[in-house]
Amino acid sequence: MNLNDLPTPTLILDRQRVRANTDEMRARIHAHGVALRPHAKTAKSVDVARMAVGDNGNALAVSTLREADYFLSQGFTDLVYAVCITPDKLDVAAALADRGAELKIITDNPAVAGAISSHASAHRVLIEIDCGEHRTGVAADSPDLTELAAAVEQSGRSRILGVLTHAGHSYATRTPDAVAAVAEAERLAAVTAGHKLRDAGFETPIISVGSTPTATHGVTFDGVTEVRPGVYVFQDMFQAGIGSCSTDALALSVLASVIASHRDRGTVMLDAGGLALSKDRSTASSEFDAGFGQIADLSGQPFPGLRVNGVHQEHGEVLVEDPELFATLAVGTKVRIFPNHACMTAAAYEVYNVVDGGVEVVDQWMRCNGW
Amino acid sequence: MNLNDLPTPTLILDRQRVRANTDEMRARIHAHGVALRPHAKTAKSVDVARMAVGDNGNALAVSTLREADYFLSQGFTDLVYAVCITPDKLDVAAALADRGAELKIITDNPAVAGAISSHASAHRVLIEIDCGEHRTGVAADSPDLTELAAAVEQSGRSRILGVLTHAGHSYATRTPDAVAAVAEAERLAAVTAGHKLRDAGFETPIISVGSTPTATHGVTFDGVTEVRPGVYVFQDMFQAGIGSCSTDALALSVLASVIASHRDRGTVMLDAGGLALSKDRSTASSEFDAGFGQIADLSGQPFPGLRVNGVHQEHGEVLVEDPELFATLAVGTKVRIFPNHACMTAAAYEVYNVVDGGVEVVDQWMRCNGW
Repeated sequence: MNLNDLPTPTLILDRQRVRANTDEMRARIHAHGVALRPHAKTAKSVDVARMAVGDNGNALAVSTLREADYFLSQGFTDLVYAVCITPDKLDVAAALADRGAELKIITDNPAVAGAISSHASAHRVLIEIDCGEHRTGVAADSPDLTELAAAVEQSGRSRILGVLTHAGHSYATRTPDAVAAVAEAERLAAVTAGHKLRDAGFETPIISVGSTPTATHGVTFDGVTEVRPGVYVFQDMFQAGIGSCSTDALALSVLASVIASHRDRGTVMLDAGGLALSKDRSTASSEFDAGFGQIADLSGQPFPGLRVNGVHQEHGEVLVEDPELFATLAVGTKVRIFPNHACMTAAAYEVYNVVDGGVEVVDQWMRCNGW
Repeated sequence: MNLNDLPTPTLILDRQRVRANTDEMRARIHAHGVALRPHAKTAKSVDVARMAVGDNGNALAVSTLREADYFLSQGFTDLVYAVCITPDKLDVAAALADRGAELKIITDNPAVAGAISSHASAHRVLIEIDCGEHRTGVAADSPDLTELAAAVEQSGRSRILGVLTHAGHSYATRTPDAVAAVAEAERLAAVTAGHKLRDAGFETPIISVGSTPTATHGVTFDGVTEVRPGVYVFQDMFQAGIGSCSTDALALSVLASVIASHRDRGTVMLDAGGLALSKDRSTASSEFDAGFGQIADLSGQPFPGLRVNGVHQEHGEVLVEDPELFATLAVGTKVRIFPNHACMTAAAYEVYNVVDGGVEVVDQWMRCNGW
């Protein structure tokens, strides 16, 4: 089966690029003497997760309890659910642990810490630290930190295992030096909080940091035990825009067909719209604006400057000025679209059509969507 | 089962409001002496479709061939696939017809018209007309119109059944009068094109127009045979913003939990982020900006001015200034979020949890996602 034979729109994943991206990140993080815990939220795929952890690897971060269930059923037992837990999700977390998951949950809230402590089951808990994004987490120097830890362990059932932080504000940086500065703030916050917990008598085997930009440009990870980047497995136009990768690393694309073309309007219409691409416009804030996605030919070679300029539910509109290029985009022609934000785009599909650097479909990999 | 018992994030549909929205639209369009062909792209649900068509109704528009397959298997045979067909989709269209679908396909392209004509199967074809949005379609007064029709019928197998247009630019209007003007342009384009085809010897039993705003505010539909609104079945914050409905009509919401709250930052974090809500920001251009969604209590009563201000993949950030309101949004509290764009948000879910005006879950309805 060739890409030209697939019904459109559909999702294409280049295994060769995933292998390069995952090998490179694993080597980089291991060179720092630190463990890699890939965040599975981007691919939500056991096949990608296996490439990301490498031989004998078993550690993942997940963004939903459904992912935890799915990856556990595929043999991944060392899991961090990296979104603040709520009391009514503790039963599900406990059931996963009963099935063999060494599931770590996180919180930054006193009421939740109390609920964890009084829950009938024993939980492994990380305190979430805010390293500057101000999304979730307590400050590393906040008195809340040790109070939260004490509250979690009050009943004697659940245990503090350390701290977790995420430098999401690295996405607002535009140079490697700026990312490195955020990475250092991320590292310092986690390490400082870990020291504080240890000084207060808590064990902290896990000092967890991570985002794709900071994992890529961080200079030192001293004191950190693990790094949790996510989108690097696929990369995307936004990451290319902020310097996390080159466009040669882009592993994920949407295959689409030209369904209409109007020379007088200078427009070509694709059958990939807001649902097939997502409405993420993150590259609008990066060095180059890829619209709703950068357009490439079937082999993955980008057409310079050609992007999806607008979307309707099932239509992607492309403005094409060059008459020669216009002529090559006749109705029925298939193109590939590199998305702004791989996590958002991939979520619209159940399956990856896998290629291996070429245009032959060599496999199909399933995703674990939803909640 | 009560809404408070559901795991979050999850999708909630108020059947009472769907019934009111669908009854009202059917009555309005029938009062004009015109048929209603609901566009199934919003709900992608046979249960909603049955309410929309009413007793003995059978006509739907669909946005994907997967929808056509799904609705055909549920007994809906009178289908319009309202996105320009490509030659490689003709086999699928023919297979649906073989299974009993009276499937109408559309095109605005000479090469596709030729491919339809030379395809081994007979197809029912509408020519797409551009009534001012300049997305797809030929102008009503273009010589292309009759040429396309002749090309479709050249082999004698496939048949022209009329014209179809969609006034998507009605979404850019902000007053009922402005919508009415667009509705009149939509009507005129379709009727004019229909006359032209009839004058050229083609039968035109179908003169199809439609969008939720124009179906709502159109003054006359003379000469039109059917109207195809879509999002009205659920309505959303954008439609409320441009005057298609009041917020009392909003039938779709996302149930979410508070997972963190930080009084010092004035933020409450929900477990509904970009994946659960979509990144559609259409209300940014409407009279009021609902962020990534308007927040309401569990019963669906909106908190004035409270919206999802920012999203991450699984986090929705809410800025809360009022200390009293802040106190009511403790971690674990469940809220409902009315989305900007119901079509985009609903697509992230497999299932609707159905309520009937209250907070009891009375049913679960499936969606037909993907392509």
